Amino acid sequence: MVGMEVPVGLGRVVEPVGVLPQAAWALDASPEIWPEEVRIRVQRLNLDAASFRQLSEKHGGDGRAVRAEVLEIIGTRGKMHNPVTGSGGMLIGVVDEVGSQSTLPVKPGDRVATLVSLTLTPLRITDGLRGWDGMSEQVPAEGHAILFGRSVVAVLPDDLSPELALAVFDVCGAPALTDRIVTAYRGAAVMNTDSRQVTVAVLGGAGKSGSLALAAARLAGARTAGIVVSDAERDTMTRAGLADHVAVADARDPVAVSSAVAGALGGPATVTVVCVDVPGCEHGAILSTRNGGTVIFFSMATSFAAAALGAEGLAADVTMLVGNGYVPGHAELALDLLRTERAVRSLFEQRLRAD
Amino acid sequence: MVGMEVPVGLGRVVEPVGVLPQAAWALDASPEIWPEEVRIRVQRLNLDAASFRQLSEKHGGDGRAVRAEVLEIIGTRGKMHNPVTGSGGMLIGVVDEVGSQSTLPVKPGDRVATLVSLTLTPLRITDGLRGWDGMSEQVPAEGHAILFGRSVVAVLPDDLSPELALAVFDVCGAPALTDRIVTAYRGAAVMNTDSRQVTVAVLGGAGKSGSLALAAARLAGARTAGIVVSDAERDTMTRAGLADHVAVADARDPVAVSSAVAGALGGPATVTVVCVDVPGCEHGAILSTRNGGTVIFFSMATSFAAAALGAEGLAADVTMLVGNGYVPGHAELALDLLRTERAVRSLFEQRLRAD
Repeated sequence: MVGMEVPVGLGRVVEPVGVLPQAAWALDASPEIWPEEVRIRVQRLNLDAASFRQLSEKHGGDGRAVRAEVLEIIGTRGKMHNPVTGSGGMLIGVVDEVGSQSTLPVKPGDRVATLVSLTLTPLRITDGLRGWDGMSEQVPAEGHAILFGRSVVAVLPDDLSPELALAVFDVCGAPALTDRIVTAYRGAAVMNTDSRQVTVAVLGGAGKSGSLALAAARLAGARTAGIVVSDAERDTMTRAGLADHVAVADARDPVAVSSAVAGALGGPATVTVVCVDVPGCEHGAILSTRNGGTVIFFSMATSFAAAALGAEGLAADVTMLVGNGYVPGHAELALDLLRTERAVRSLFEQRLRAD
Repeated sequence: MVGMEVPVGLGRVVEPVGVLPQAAWALDASPEIWPEEVRIRVQRLNLDAASFRQLSEKHGGDGRAVRAEVLEIIGTRGKMHNPVTGSGGMLIGVVDEVGSQSTLPVKPGDRVATLVSLTLTPLRITDGLRGWDGMSEQVPAEGHAILFGRSVVAVLPDDLSPELALAVFDVCGAPALTDRIVTAYRGAAVMNTDSRQVTVAVLGGAGKSGSLALAAARLAGARTAGIVVSDAERDTMTRAGLADHVAVADARDPVAVSSAVAGALGGPATVTVVCVDVPGCEHGAILSTRNGGTVIFFSMATSFAAAALGAEGLAADVTMLVGNGYVPGHAELALDLLRTERAVRSLFEQRLRAD
């Protein structure tokens, strides 16, 4: 029973029994830990952008109603798992207790960020979220959360504010996977199996995951284009020098976005990274990518069927990746990008101030 | 305007204007063709398995009600695009008229199968589907369909029945992409970057796409395991010798399926191919795959969010691919597998007889 040995929190699943915690409707968020678990005293939740947007739009921007629904979700499900978007977010807190058989690299008193989704993290809130106005993704909170044996957690760095580190960790899979894919294409170029220059288009290049993906792509040796939604974002990006090219297009409009990418890069991209958190960007991304290229979908608003059928319908020989939020070393790579790329850090700080 | 030059049928979109045909709610299925288009006289539709299952279950197996709803969908949308599953299927027919600027390799009178989804193919039915009892995915039909310039179409082979060829074409992306991925891992082994034997687990190995994926994986040099849902399927597969190992597990149960794969292959698979057309197989597939391995999702029932968050939650460093139905040469590769692998042909013929 190899599968049984993987400490993935099966004992915390209340309903339905036998599924993994992320697929469960409800988890047991009791504070008592199993030997391989870690309990964290929660300080702050960072809601997934798609989840917060859905809640805020549903309640017409009424922060009290948003707060009430978040409390109800957590109370009912034992985790912050938005039933509409299917997404969660992450949290920061202080390690409270480490089980005797835990293999996670933390000790009591460490200030940490969880790098696994809130959709599978047992969570109990004890302060009614009274410090939060329901108007932003950053949620001051008191309570506790549980980490399983096979989990991902990072100790917060001393040189960056927790809010900044958390915002980086939340999207750190995007630059890491972008780096890996660009490096693979560059390797093929070195081996002379494909000598074309590697180009990368990032849809939603002015956002958090988008700006990190752009920085990672350029550092890995690609020529980059950031596609943004407004002239204001274009001007900010151009001044910051975050990408080699910047163009404006609505990512949901396949004709507009593929024209913008081709105009910026001189043809379709080797790699297209989708960081726009709205539905309907699949076809534009596919049309923006050259034959033999790769699309990396990082938006939780991606439709599997739209991507699969879109590529088939366009007779597009592109590799399409489900953006995996876990790549070994992803947190360190993203923090290093923030430290070394002034434009990235400035963008993150602006976003945090705007929250 | 590079994007504008791609002949993808924008002129056929009725609502909403500006999206690609697959994303459109409704298409114009008028018989008059544009210069780059091809009109086909329809003989038979092959509904996507997930779509037919949804319709059949919704109507409690009442074939007349299923037929009425298929007619209503086609009449309303101008295409067979199931609004619940988002999937379609494909069709066979005879080429009726070829536009003066068409680049498709067909001529009037050719008997062809469309290899693009019905979800983006303008379609009009003129016989009320009176030859169909609503009880199977194979739908005798009269009417016409339109192919765009950038499309995929195959002339039906002389040595196989149209029904058999159509059933193969419907899933021909699965063996082609499996072949490509196994070959890449084998190449890495030859280059000594990864010397481990390549193993492939196919969830749903007894189905059409699953059996072709198993055959392609073994031909490409992998050791294979087929995971099936019942003892009867296991016995059939074992007798046929379609896979090196066969095991029984419910693909929706992550613990059961990963244990079955590990038991069959001696550890998690290099490549896991998901060919089970039911929701909830994402986590089992991820848990069944080794670090550095690849999951190929071929089921239209795949949830993007469940896959992305599942891998993150399990700290699983696996590459996850959206199964692209288009890989150059896919139709020929699949037909060759059917011709050379007696077990595959036998399975397809059984499935057709059972329809």
